[in-house]
Amino acid sequence: MSDEKLPARNENFAEWYNQLVLRAEMADYAPVRGCMVVRPYGWTLWENMTAALDRRFKETGHTNAAFPMLIPLSFFEKEKEHVEGFSPQLAVVTHGGGEKLEEPLAVRPTSETIIGYMYSKWIKSWRDLPVLINQWGSVLRWEIRTKLFLRTAEFYWQEGHTAHISEQEAREETLRMLEVYRDFAVTECAIPVLSGYKSETEKFAGAVHSTSIEAMMQDKRALQAGTSHYFGQNFARAFDIQYLDRANTLQHCWTTSWGLSTRMVGAIIMVHGDDQGLVLPPRLAPIQAVIVPIYKNDEEKEKVLEAARRMDALLKASGVRTHLDDREEVTPGFKFNDWELRGVPLRIEIGPKDVQAASVALARRDRPGRAGKSTVAETAGAATVTALLSEIQAGMLAAATAFRDSNIHHPSTYSELVDVLSDGWAFAWWCGSARCEAQVKEETKATTRCIPLEGQPDGAGHCIVCGEKATTKVYFARAY
Amino acid sequence: MSDEKLPARNENFAEWYNQLVLRAEMADYAPVRGCMVVRPYGWTLWENMTAALDRRFKETGHTNAAFPMLIPLSFFEKEKEHVEGFSPQLAVVTHGGGEKLEEPLAVRPTSETIIGYMYSKWIKSWRDLPVLINQWGSVLRWEIRTKLFLRTAEFYWQEGHTAHISEQEAREETLRMLEVYRDFAVTECAIPVLSGYKSETEKFAGAVHSTSIEAMMQDKRALQAGTSHYFGQNFARAFDIQYLDRANTLQHCWTTSWGLSTRMVGAIIMVHGDDQGLVLPPRLAPIQAVIVPIYKNDEEKEKVLEAARRMDALLKASGVRTHLDDREEVTPGFKFNDWELRGVPLRIEIGPKDVQAASVALARRDRPGRAGKSTVAETAGAATVTALLSEIQAGMLAAATAFRDSNIHHPSTYSELVDVLSDGWAFAWWCGSARCEAQVKEETKATTRCIPLEGQPDGAGHCIVCGEKATTKVYFARAY
Repeated sequence: MSDEKLPARNENFAEWYNQLVLRAEMADYAPVRGCMVVRPYGWTLWENMTAALDRRFKETGHTNAAFPMLIPLSFFEKEKEHVEGFSPQLAVVTHGGGEKLEEPLAVRPTSETIIGYMYSKWIKSWRDLPVLINQWGSVLRWEIRTKLFLRTAEFYWQEGHTAHISEQEAREETLRMLEVYRDFAVTECAIPVLSGYKSETEKFAGAVHSTSIEAMMQDKRALQAGTSHYFGQNFARAFDIQYLDRANTLQHCWTTSWGLSTRMVGAIIMVHGDDQGLVLPPRLAPIQAVIVPIYKNDEEKEKVLEAARRMDALLKASGVRTHLDDREEVTPGFKFNDWELRGVPLRIEIGPKDVQAASVALARRDRPGRAGKSTVAETAGAATVTALLSEIQAGMLAAATAFRDSNIHHPSTYSELVDVLSDGWAFAWWCGSARCEAQVKEETKATTRCIPLEGQPDGAGHCIVCGEKATTKVYFARAY
Repeated sequence: MSDEKLPARNENFAEWYNQLVLRAEMADYAPVRGCMVVRPYGWTLWENMTAALDRRFKETGHTNAAFPMLIPLSFFEKEKEHVEGFSPQLAVVTHGGGEKLEEPLAVRPTSETIIGYMYSKWIKSWRDLPVLINQWGSVLRWEIRTKLFLRTAEFYWQEGHTAHISEQEAREETLRMLEVYRDFAVTECAIPVLSGYKSETEKFAGAVHSTSIEAMMQDKRALQAGTSHYFGQNFARAFDIQYLDRANTLQHCWTTSWGLSTRMVGAIIMVHGDDQGLVLPPRLAPIQAVIVPIYKNDEEKEKVLEAARRMDALLKASGVRTHLDDREEVTPGFKFNDWELRGVPLRIEIGPKDVQAASVALARRDRPGRAGKSTVAETAGAATVTALLSEIQAGMLAAATAFRDSNIHHPSTYSELVDVLSDGWAFAWWCGSARCEAQVKEETKATTRCIPLEGQPDGAGHCIVCGEKATTKVYFARAY
């Protein structure tokens, strides 16, 4: 890290983000345009996220598998909307083993097509259903502009692909996985996302409908942080995914797909970070508590390090992810700044006076200054740290929720809508027409984010754009 | 699965393997030539393997990260041997986002080049060393012939890449990771591999030297199951990976890389499988014990299923990975065959008589027939199953070790060497010359596998090919 201060969030949010990602060693730019390198600290955070998600996938009956990264270009032609959506973004392999290929191959931008092809081989009977498979990996969608974690050509994600015996079962799966994402975002990331249906304009290429979780960043822009799609029989028809039902009649399956990517890492940074750096939610933080020994001479050093090692072992035994920072070439002050930049939830300082008093000093990352400081007896260290980590996690969610709620407005006229969208979200009646959506986008740069599943008022109203009858309210916001 | 029997191993080992992989639903052929799909059962096995390896990597101080899959073609030119080794195998992206790229990009066949490039940006000082990073993912090496898990264009693996302050440290790292692989193979896969140095001919393109673990399949062919390479300063020079040492002098780093892939899944199949199907080592098996309820009428069914569910819960609570096969559309006999094909280590049968006697019947996958059967009181079920799984794991390693040792020969003349290599391995004196290696390969199709770290005799001997002085013995074998 360098000693320079980060730009302030309220002066230049974009620059604050870019510098923070680099200086906290979360990620770096790759030599190939549009691509990123996820560095160990960023990847460890992502690993903790994948573990929390994977556990939820398995609890809901899914298993993982792996499908090839190369897909014949002709596969994309089979679903009309899908090819229109993805063709402009493909990276194409034309040569292999020194020779020109007969058919060019795309590096997968998403895997509905190749997985659909395999499902058509595997699924024969109602006994083979449902098929509930997830894949962890990376995909490639050609991008010129790069914003680390948020917009890169190659990005890391999981993509679930399921096939079902009925429309109802597939629709239930779509919403089940949306709820898994919502729960993951809220519980693990401390991000109070809103979940709901995307508009026709904003849906996935080839879906009957798409759903998403939407998060508010500190610059009040929205980030779509996970999507779950219901395909009806579109892909089953395109790829001949058919089964014999109990009456021995051939039927097309109903399919879904759902994905969440390293964008969510960007969301965690932009929802919780402050001008000193990252603020990571304890449940996901690579390091939950960092121990910094403080001493002036060899005599003090010996005693302090002994106490520090004792605390480190005590906490590790309690399942806390700790790191003892015993570097000798930098000062404690440098270490404080360094770990603040990296967003470690709790700092534990141990100096000669602490050793004498058999206590340790704690400093919370989420509450700067005196308010976040406390002293605790060494013997109570593990219990206190564990409790504090839970308290920090809850506090971060509460703070993000309060911020979100205070920035969602309820305009009742179009001019109010335009007004609030310059610095916040709007929740307003919408007739559902693409024309009204387009007008808002044209005049405010805001798009519809989602028609929420929960929080819809009873009855009906009038579209905030055209005044026609509207049965649902939608969130409008400028988005990443 | 189909009801047809597998080909017998001793009649057609290759066909036995191919059919087994498909019918046990471990993997399937992809629509792109040379590529495979790893199906959920195969991928779950691989996940258990990756967890066991990843734990060992972290215990030895490594963390994971992610580097791009696309590498500028020019990067391969920087290391002379490396480009010669990998150029013929590259898949090349020439178009992105609908336009021709200025510089073509290779899909990574291995990541020394792009990781070396990033290390040169990250490493400045001795304080930054060592860098100990691993990456999980897939790579692509153009292949026309496909053999699932053993030879595919895209395959899954991990690749560790480390940079060090001294030659000694890098050499130690190379051997440390070789030992991690050996321990993983022996302890988790129950495969008694031999570890040692590769010959100059067989080493990795760009390495100073390569080391490997080598396993014997049941057809007595060798499989290289993991490699660890010492690069000296070759890649550091090619990619300017330099650091300021404590005396403020610029030095090149010493680097290593090490990888283990889904080939190891193939090894597990070919070392342990029998004519009935897979035999999976309990420590890695996706399902360790399958419970099959047996009943003739509804009254029996109710009681039997109740006992089966009780046993399932009991075993799960003890940490055993169980599956209760309560399918109604197939017979118990079909289930027995099905789970034998899939190599589940232990089968637990529960019928009306078992319920009455408060016992369950156990059948070991590794010991067909009566020898592998026992009955145990329900109350002792969890303890017995846990103990049996350990016994099976140990038994599988012992059997594979005995098979290996009885098929390693110690020829003392060249004609004996040629003779034994038609159906086994040879351990013999070798002068180290590529010419003698080439002669053996030409006349027997066998290659040098490794010069083992352990088991070298004291003193010296005479090369079994040319009769010149030799200081080490080497394993010769025909290999996959």
